[in-house]
Amino acid sequence: MASQHTAAAAVRGPSIAGAGCRGALLLALLLAAAAALVPVAEPSCPRDNSVVKDINKMHQSNYGIGGFSHITVAGALAHGMKEVEVWLQTISVGQRTPIHRHSCEEVFVVLKGRGTLLLGSTSLPYPGTPQEIPVAQNSTFTVPVNDPHQVWNSDEHEDLQVLVIISRPPVKIFLYDDWSMRHTAAKLKFPFVWDEGCLDAPKDEL
Amino acid sequence: MASQHTAAAAVRGPSIAGAGCRGALLLALLLAAAAALVPVAEPSCPRDNSVVKDINKMHQSNYGIGGFSHITVAGALAHGMKEVEVWLQTISVGQRTPIHRHSCEEVFVVLKGRGTLLLGSTSLPYPGTPQEIPVAQNSTFTVPVNDPHQVWNSDEHEDLQVLVIISRPPVKIFLYDDWSMRHTAAKLKFPFVWDEGCLDAPKDEL
Repeated sequence: MASQHTAAAAVRGPSIAGAGCRGALLLALLLAAAAALVPVAEPSCPRDNSVVKDINKMHQSNYGIGGFSHITVAGALAHGMKEVEVWLQTISVGQRTPIHRHSCEEVFVVLKGRGTLLLGSTSLPYPGTPQEIPVAQNSTFTVPVNDPHQVWNSDEHEDLQVLVIISRPPVKIFLYDDWSMRHTAAKLKFPFVWDEGCLDAPKDEL
Repeated sequence: MASQHTAAAAVRGPSIAGAGCRGALLLALLLAAAAALVPVAEPSCPRDNSVVKDINKMHQSNYGIGGFSHITVAGALAHGMKEVEVWLQTISVGQRTPIHRHSCEEVFVVLKGRGTLLLGSTSLPYPGTPQEIPVAQNSTFTVPVNDPHQVWNSDEHEDLQVLVIISRPPVKIFLYDDWSMRHTAAKLKFPFVWDEGCLDAPKDEL
């Protein structure tokens, strides 16, 4: 926006318009054309650098997944974190995260509810039949780097709420359609960087 | 313990004792002497590599601080984490963590209670007069790398419980006696690596 404003000011500016000279008009037109070519510097990832934040007031998204809520409590793109990222995710009864993997350490702390961790292996070219591991409130679990996994609220009554900690942010998420197929970037159905306000990372970064 | 057991078995073992020969006895004595010289391989940092852990059953310590409890939910020395570490800390009414700093990113999530973050600046040779920043349940705060800080349960009624996330584990903690003094490794009063079962990291690593 800043460069557009500058160009517009040049077109209307008294010092140039008042001179009435063709050179100045040409310069103004050139500046306006250049401004149109320069990408507008919209703050696509607005940063909140305050020290203390109220999690209840932070941006929440479902990323197109029914019965899912994600809050980036501390994020690379949203808050400038460089080494760790923290998310709060809530999964409704019966819902699941996508089957996915990522190249980072990941720790879950179950704050509420119960569910099932489905955990595949990186040793196969596809996720394979996963282990099904029960998890519950006050439990913690880690997902080995690059192992395909899915968190399922297999309870019948209560939301499953987890705090998720990852390294190497912002994490790039590789999705699988199901447990028997290879992952494919072409089949991404929703943004793969879970970071508040930054949903439009270029897909070719995968 | 394994090597001591092997040596003792050699002394008492029927195949050697039954032979009654001086060479075998000498060998047994040499083995026993060698065993005494070899450091006993006690598991000073026992690892728990299970995927899911019940936080209620994890080791808890107060590290010599009254009204303080620390659980390493996911740790470098205890669980093999390489890039992130997660702690659960509970601070009683009126109590404080030590004034300290460390060279890592740190995120707090307040799970329960309310308190005050005291935050100094790395730009001084001593912590200096800290900012006093109120924190409460469902808030999150970050501590800039190397900034001196202290968490104080300034409430009059309830425990303050925080989940703490750090990068670059295991973290080395530099302590300050008070807000107007330089830190000094010589004045350490308790272990500086908060990691379950691993309280004896050599001080010269500071």
